[in-house]
Amino acid sequence: MKGNIIVGQSGGPTAVINSSLAGVFSAAKELGVKKIYGMHHGIQGFLAEDIVDLSEYVKNDADVEILKRTPSAFLGSCRYKLPKIEGNEEVYDKMFEIMDKYEIECLFYIGGNDSMDTIKMLSDYAAQKGKKQRFMGVPKTIDNDLPITDHCPGYGSAAKYIAASLKEVIRDNSSFGIEKPTVLICEIMGRHAGWLTAAAALSRDEDCEGPDLIYLPEKVFDYDDFLARIKDLSVKKSSVVVAVSEGVKLADGRFVCELGGGADFVDAFGHKQLSGCAVTLANKIAADTGLKTRAIEFSTLQRAGTHIASLNDINEAFNVGHLACRAADEGKTGMMITIEVTKRSPYEVTYGIHDIHQIANVEKPVPAEWISEDGTDVLQGYVDYARPLILGELTPLMVNGVPKHLVLKRDTYR
Amino acid sequence: MKGNIIVGQSGGPTAVINSSLAGVFSAAKELGVKKIYGMHHGIQGFLAEDIVDLSEYVKNDADVEILKRTPSAFLGSCRYKLPKIEGNEEVYDKMFEIMDKYEIECLFYIGGNDSMDTIKMLSDYAAQKGKKQRFMGVPKTIDNDLPITDHCPGYGSAAKYIAASLKEVIRDNSSFGIEKPTVLICEIMGRHAGWLTAAAALSRDEDCEGPDLIYLPEKVFDYDDFLARIKDLSVKKSSVVVAVSEGVKLADGRFVCELGGGADFVDAFGHKQLSGCAVTLANKIAADTGLKTRAIEFSTLQRAGTHIASLNDINEAFNVGHLACRAADEGKTGMMITIEVTKRSPYEVTYGIHDIHQIANVEKPVPAEWISEDGTDVLQGYVDYARPLILGELTPLMVNGVPKHLVLKRDTYR
Repeated sequence: MKGNIIVGQSGGPTAVINSSLAGVFSAAKELGVKKIYGMHHGIQGFLAEDIVDLSEYVKNDADVEILKRTPSAFLGSCRYKLPKIEGNEEVYDKMFEIMDKYEIECLFYIGGNDSMDTIKMLSDYAAQKGKKQRFMGVPKTIDNDLPITDHCPGYGSAAKYIAASLKEVIRDNSSFGIEKPTVLICEIMGRHAGWLTAAAALSRDEDCEGPDLIYLPEKVFDYDDFLARIKDLSVKKSSVVVAVSEGVKLADGRFVCELGGGADFVDAFGHKQLSGCAVTLANKIAADTGLKTRAIEFSTLQRAGTHIASLNDINEAFNVGHLACRAADEGKTGMMITIEVTKRSPYEVTYGIHDIHQIANVEKPVPAEWISEDGTDVLQGYVDYARPLILGELTPLMVNGVPKHLVLKRDTYR
Repeated sequence: MKGNIIVGQSGGPTAVINSSLAGVFSAAKELGVKKIYGMHHGIQGFLAEDIVDLSEYVKNDADVEILKRTPSAFLGSCRYKLPKIEGNEEVYDKMFEIMDKYEIECLFYIGGNDSMDTIKMLSDYAAQKGKKQRFMGVPKTIDNDLPITDHCPGYGSAAKYIAASLKEVIRDNSSFGIEKPTVLICEIMGRHAGWLTAAAALSRDEDCEGPDLIYLPEKVFDYDDFLARIKDLSVKKSSVVVAVSEGVKLADGRFVCELGGGADFVDAFGHKQLSGCAVTLANKIAADTGLKTRAIEFSTLQRAGTHIASLNDINEAFNVGHLACRAADEGKTGMMITIEVTKRSPYEVTYGIHDIHQIANVEKPVPAEWISEDGTDVLQGYVDYARPLILGELTPLMVNGVPKHLVLKRDTYR
């Protein structure tokens, strides 16, 4: 590759999104790319020409290793969505103008559905206008809802965080309950797809009974049925644990968090901002049963928990970044690297590459055959699928008792 | 020691309370104690004669190691408070009757202020009635509010969890904020003492600016001043982070969570049950400034996070358990093992033993000289005190991608 490259990160960060950045960076170094630029806050920062020279921050192999162990988007993220091409050519022209100025040959965007849409639009525009730049998508999302690829980098680590933390709070919850049980309701991320909430099942083992009920947004949530199940469990068990997705909905289409009259609002991508589903259920169950309840929201902890990231996930995140750079070097554009699992146990993967048009804006839900008929659990098929994704650890570099991170200093103050 | 021993765990669990159990168990094994009993759910279970033979569950050295890595109270906990002796002799007589039946020579209670009160009452009763049994307290509390001892086992690991997790969510929070910052408010446990919230300062290092504001319950919380500070920070920074204790109060004595009209109730020990202080502040700040806000409550995650426990803490927890057993063997009663720090850096500790009467029911707040005058931060004196307590890690035993725990099977179903 003769020109320079630029890489950006977009959407909700993950525990391993920086491992993908490290992968792109390392491959570019191996390929002898002159300048490896980073967009500060994705396309939004790029349009403001807020561009950094990555080599100034990632100076050696130790920095690469710390970058792999750093949560959140090192370069900063954004939720900016490119407008449709027709009638908005000036935005695209500006993008290409900046790319020309920095002699950028390939642009990499690490992200989920919306980010893959950005790659699609840019590669479409380049094809329409005969531009020479190439565009590659690097998959990233804790939501695991990208199609074609077996799973998404970022998912395995969030799933591992959820399974491990749930195991710990299940132990905590079972420590009391001598007279009557505490009902613990854990709220897990995932607006439309229940992949993350399904990971609650990975806490089950001979030393942990796991959650008693798991509710994914793929199924309608029935409060009366839920209440009956809690009442039943509470006379049998000293600890009742529920895992529920932030996105679960009632039959009338309202979110469960709206049971309590909670407000919600819409973000720049048109997604409803949700919160408080576990709190809503905990308060309602307490009122309806008199049981002691507790709500825990794993919140951003679940996507930032790099200290307990999955080694398989970190490595795959690195590899998709690395391979995206290699593919772009070979002339590919408008594509995304995919992960193909050739064997579940022992776990073996290979990587593919796929046309972005079949990926952008498509959301993959948890398959119906992996959800129990009554909608309160996930089945063994899911566990077999997900178990290898959470295996292995990469020891954090502990300094002063806490994990060390690589940080873009300029990100601190505006 | 000719007789048997019994050990119980009480109050809120910690990440290392089982390491103290392992310490008592190991010392008793070394002393050749015949039967090492455990109370299932503390004194409350003991009074119901719900007693287990620990050797049936902790079978070998590997089990001891897994026990040290298991969060929450292995034996189950309780919040039962012994009634005052006068007029309630029948409760005490029953306790001693059961001890006689099981030929128990020494009773160990691992817990905080309320548990030390139990040891005081039992040893007072034994002294009054000329009973031969001995009673030893083993300190445990994430709250770190026991007097005499330099710090309490359980605190270091919770502090490490808080510092490490806060570092991660601070990175996450700083990933957006290109247009306007997100105000992240993290709620940390601690009803009366701000020790845990102070640990938020331990996230600060060259790679992390730490929280912008830290509010302990030792100081009155002024919402108007807080609002002014948030407004000021939000024009200077791309990410604003606040650490706040669940126990902070307004000048009129109400808890901050009551700003939003939140309900509260009183538990068996007369403590107000609190929640939602961060959510209350996040909602109010959003309404008053239009800024995007997010609330995270570390909840029981912070006391159950054994996977990132402090090695110093695990070892000290083990040692206080071990030494309590040794001291009882030497004839001591009505006392608690204490930790004395002889040097902060490099860290050196020794252990002492102290009369329980000066410990029970006394709460140690964060010293005023470690809190900034404006009440929005903690000072270097605290950091110097707390840093060694979070140092070191004990690798979890990872099985199927999650930490392995030792579990009392009978605790699952009632």
